[in-house]
Amino acid sequence: MSKKINGIGASEGIALAKTLVLIEEEIKISKQTITDTNKEILKLEKAIEESIGELESLRENTLKKLGEEKSAIFEAHKDIANDPQIKAEIEEMINGEKINAEFATQAITNNYFEMFSQMDDHYFKERSADIKDVASRIIKHIVGAKIIDLSTIKDEVIIVAEDLTPSQTAQLDKKFVKGFATNIGGRTSHAAIMARSLEIPAVLGLKTITKDIKDGELLALDGTEGTVEFNLNDSEIKEYNNKAVEFAKLIAELKNFKDQPTKSKDGQSKLIEANIGSPNDIDSVLDNGAEGVGLFRSEFLYMDNDHFPTEEEQFVSYKKVVEQMNGKIVVIRTLDIGGDKKLSYFEFPHEMNPFLGYRAIRFTLNRKDIFRDQIRALLRASAFGKLGIMFPMIATIDEFKKAKAFVEECKAELDKENIKYDKGVQIGMMVEIPSAAVNADKFAKYADFFSIGTNDLIQYSMAADRMSENVTYLYQPTNPSILRLIKMTIDGAHTQNRWVGMCGEMAGDANAIPLLLGLGLDAFSMSATSMLRARSIISKLDSKETANLAEQALQLETEEQVLELVSKFMDNK
Amino acid sequence: MSKKINGIGASEGIALAKTLVLIEEEIKISKQTITDTNKEILKLEKAIEESIGELESLRENTLKKLGEEKSAIFEAHKDIANDPQIKAEIEEMINGEKINAEFATQAITNNYFEMFSQMDDHYFKERSADIKDVASRIIKHIVGAKIIDLSTIKDEVIIVAEDLTPSQTAQLDKKFVKGFATNIGGRTSHAAIMARSLEIPAVLGLKTITKDIKDGELLALDGTEGTVEFNLNDSEIKEYNNKAVEFAKLIAELKNFKDQPTKSKDGQSKLIEANIGSPNDIDSVLDNGAEGVGLFRSEFLYMDNDHFPTEEEQFVSYKKVVEQMNGKIVVIRTLDIGGDKKLSYFEFPHEMNPFLGYRAIRFTLNRKDIFRDQIRALLRASAFGKLGIMFPMIATIDEFKKAKAFVEECKAELDKENIKYDKGVQIGMMVEIPSAAVNADKFAKYADFFSIGTNDLIQYSMAADRMSENVTYLYQPTNPSILRLIKMTIDGAHTQNRWVGMCGEMAGDANAIPLLLGLGLDAFSMSATSMLRARSIISKLDSKETANLAEQALQLETEEQVLELVSKFMDNK
Repeated sequence: MSKKINGIGASEGIALAKTLVLIEEEIKISKQTITDTNKEILKLEKAIEESIGELESLRENTLKKLGEEKSAIFEAHKDIANDPQIKAEIEEMINGEKINAEFATQAITNNYFEMFSQMDDHYFKERSADIKDVASRIIKHIVGAKIIDLSTIKDEVIIVAEDLTPSQTAQLDKKFVKGFATNIGGRTSHAAIMARSLEIPAVLGLKTITKDIKDGELLALDGTEGTVEFNLNDSEIKEYNNKAVEFAKLIAELKNFKDQPTKSKDGQSKLIEANIGSPNDIDSVLDNGAEGVGLFRSEFLYMDNDHFPTEEEQFVSYKKVVEQMNGKIVVIRTLDIGGDKKLSYFEFPHEMNPFLGYRAIRFTLNRKDIFRDQIRALLRASAFGKLGIMFPMIATIDEFKKAKAFVEECKAELDKENIKYDKGVQIGMMVEIPSAAVNADKFAKYADFFSIGTNDLIQYSMAADRMSENVTYLYQPTNPSILRLIKMTIDGAHTQNRWVGMCGEMAGDANAIPLLLGLGLDAFSMSATSMLRARSIISKLDSKETANLAEQALQLETEEQVLELVSKFMDNK
Repeated sequence: MSKKINGIGASEGIALAKTLVLIEEEIKISKQTITDTNKEILKLEKAIEESIGELESLRENTLKKLGEEKSAIFEAHKDIANDPQIKAEIEEMINGEKINAEFATQAITNNYFEMFSQMDDHYFKERSADIKDVASRIIKHIVGAKIIDLSTIKDEVIIVAEDLTPSQTAQLDKKFVKGFATNIGGRTSHAAIMARSLEIPAVLGLKTITKDIKDGELLALDGTEGTVEFNLNDSEIKEYNNKAVEFAKLIAELKNFKDQPTKSKDGQSKLIEANIGSPNDIDSVLDNGAEGVGLFRSEFLYMDNDHFPTEEEQFVSYKKVVEQMNGKIVVIRTLDIGGDKKLSYFEFPHEMNPFLGYRAIRFTLNRKDIFRDQIRALLRASAFGKLGIMFPMIATIDEFKKAKAFVEECKAELDKENIKYDKGVQIGMMVEIPSAAVNADKFAKYADFFSIGTNDLIQYSMAADRMSENVTYLYQPTNPSILRLIKMTIDGAHTQNRWVGMCGEMAGDANAIPLLLGLGLDAFSMSATSMLRARSIISKLDSKETANLAEQALQLETEEQVLELVSKFMDNK
């Protein structure tokens, strides 16, 4: 009889293939007293050198296959391997304690790992996985252990492993790797994000899958349902094959939507747009038929850097995106730094509740020197396409007016300097703070557009940090309270003839789309891979029917009731 | 010519008296090598013993003059002086380094001070001031320095000092100490809180007042305006005397309101209630004519303790308050722990944003064992007067229903055990999370009453931690967005014939009261000392006029505009 195991569906699709079970050779490292410390240091140096060589070729391959953004991880890994401070500490330990290189390397890198992994900051937490990954690579070189190179796989397989490291996922070739299943990880783990961007079906968090199944056994994986199944009989195999065909058909069907404008069944025009984090994302955005960029997070320019980016550096990036989007709107959000997003070259004040603190517009309005470079760069880039400037974390009308006045000040400067910009550049704001949502009608007198940031709006409206495990149950996008705030925002904007987009995760959520359409949302901005599906869903919906649906949902009391209502409604589509 | 200096008005009223400038004798402590370590340890022990004796008599005097709550600080100080760990560390340092007792005491207590003062937690931050206070007392005893005993003052004076320590403020006798002025401190500092509860006019944060004025000089202090003035001529002295008479008249006038019911000018009945933190506050509550307790924070039972209080311990406290209030309503809020409020005997998970985390109802619904003791104690106390049970931090209707169902469960238990409780006990909730405010009409189907917690509601609605210096400008109680949320809450409750109170600081704010009356608020709960003034203000206001005022305010865009509108409106009262 077949056996089915439930995990977390991290990347959609069906895979049916033999497993390749990766058993990481456990390297036992013991402390050894040595006399020839120079020899140990030479071993260390050679291992670092070899690691850097490998990482460089990984970087080049990834750049070719997946673009600059994904390859950046190996740049970061090289930086870690190259770090003179870490190396000096390891050498000091070898010399001081007269011990073997692998033990010293493990001890020192473990310190760094512990330090980073205990930080509150998500950025640094992620860095701790990179440190472990690089340390393990160097140690394997020291002791001469085998480093599994997943890029050498030349058979169709489903990879089964404890976890996949950042460097391993970057090596996967989707021609051969049909899927992967791991013991640990969740929807937001590094492996999950990579799986989705590679479009490889994946089920994570299966706990004991490396023990449950043998290497070479046939495994069926359903990334949509989040299950794996093995010991299959012929009819079950056939069923999975059919499912795979169905899924491929769905994907093909979605591709048909690529060059079509977004329209509801009754012909209402909407926009499906992309959220991006860097100019490197544009290829995927265009491949998936975006009608614009609804959110370009400008943070990457600041975070992947060792100084505040100059006006010129920013201008080059913004211009590139605007030009590539070729007349389609690109909404660029001004710096949203602070909170959990820190900079290596600038110290933010320590705060007890950084999500309720000194961040985004609160910071930039206070640091006009930094803000000026960004606003001037944005204005200059506006001459090369259709650009919208968007301010994050606006809580009061005062703040919006101050920010807008500052843009006018920068425009006057450019006028004086005879520098071109689009005189009609739109200036809008994120609606992500409850005070803005409930007073949207008044903000709309000043803002050209709104973009609803549901991740933060839900967090503040529920007073629940979505990163805090104990309160994630309060992250309820379709709770009637949240729907009411969204309705107030959209209605408020429409009274002043402004358009409203949404750039939080909710915009791409199949359960939320009928409600959002019904509430009158104009633009849906999401990750590139969700866009075609969203366009397809909208094409099947009638705007009057969904308006009726939304009206009913607003009368309900709990998210559960709303989801049930939507589910019933969609059953008939 | 006279000289006027602006500070922070921390406690209202006018004082005119000669100054007593406290110059703390600066004790220079140097490290000395000693041979007879036993002698040093004896010095230390004697100093600790003397300190404990002093602290005990301070505790007894304070208990008599100000009640149990205020005297608790000396209990805490005795605990610090008695701490075996601290003493052992000091002795170890004396013995180990062969140094003098005062130096070792300073070094060790400084460590503790630094440790506590750097903690994020407000509770521990406050403890650091206590440690410094106790350490300074012990060191003075070791070196034989004079300890200023403010309770010996027998002349009418205004005390001028760098700062007043917790133990100094507790010694002040308001018969002689007419006011105090300090270099440092703000409205929420320990000295400010004590000044208000002693009803001594105080101006803090005057920076250099200890240098600006001489000992024995005549000083005029205006705690309402937050100014001090000296070098006064006769007509200026007369003016201050007049002002003092005016203020005394106002206070006397307010006393007239003590036994009157709260009514607007046009006869609408409202309630003025008190916020309290312990049963010891009840005397002051009754002295100031409360019509009920709108918020009894149950945390003190948990925080000033070394174990979760038992059902019996809680019952005794709740019963005492309910009985003393003699039929007037007492709304007791269930445990609001977590966030910045920690317990010494229970470890909460570390969170990045504790204000958005695992606290209050989120904690108690998850720990029914702890919740049961409290709910049973509350129900049992309900048999002895009029008690309301209120749940904090309700974000969803699900949560409220679960909490209410749990009360029903506890009632069933009591029924079985034949234990009495009030079958009509009201069960309500705090409205302090935006999601509850925007959906108040639906929550009102289940909750018997609401109490609007403006401190948190503003914090979440603006996404601004009021403790974070850089964003305090966003703490805007009368911002039109906040007024809209309050309106939604009150209107929502009234559609279901429920009453709505407010227990945040806003309820006692003279600028907010006309707006709140206009929005239809039923009960105003505040600190005991603000109650009579609030009742007086309401007596001068017409409910239709204020409804019109509130309607106008809701149409405005900024808090500044609202405050201007209110100010104009009140000018005609």
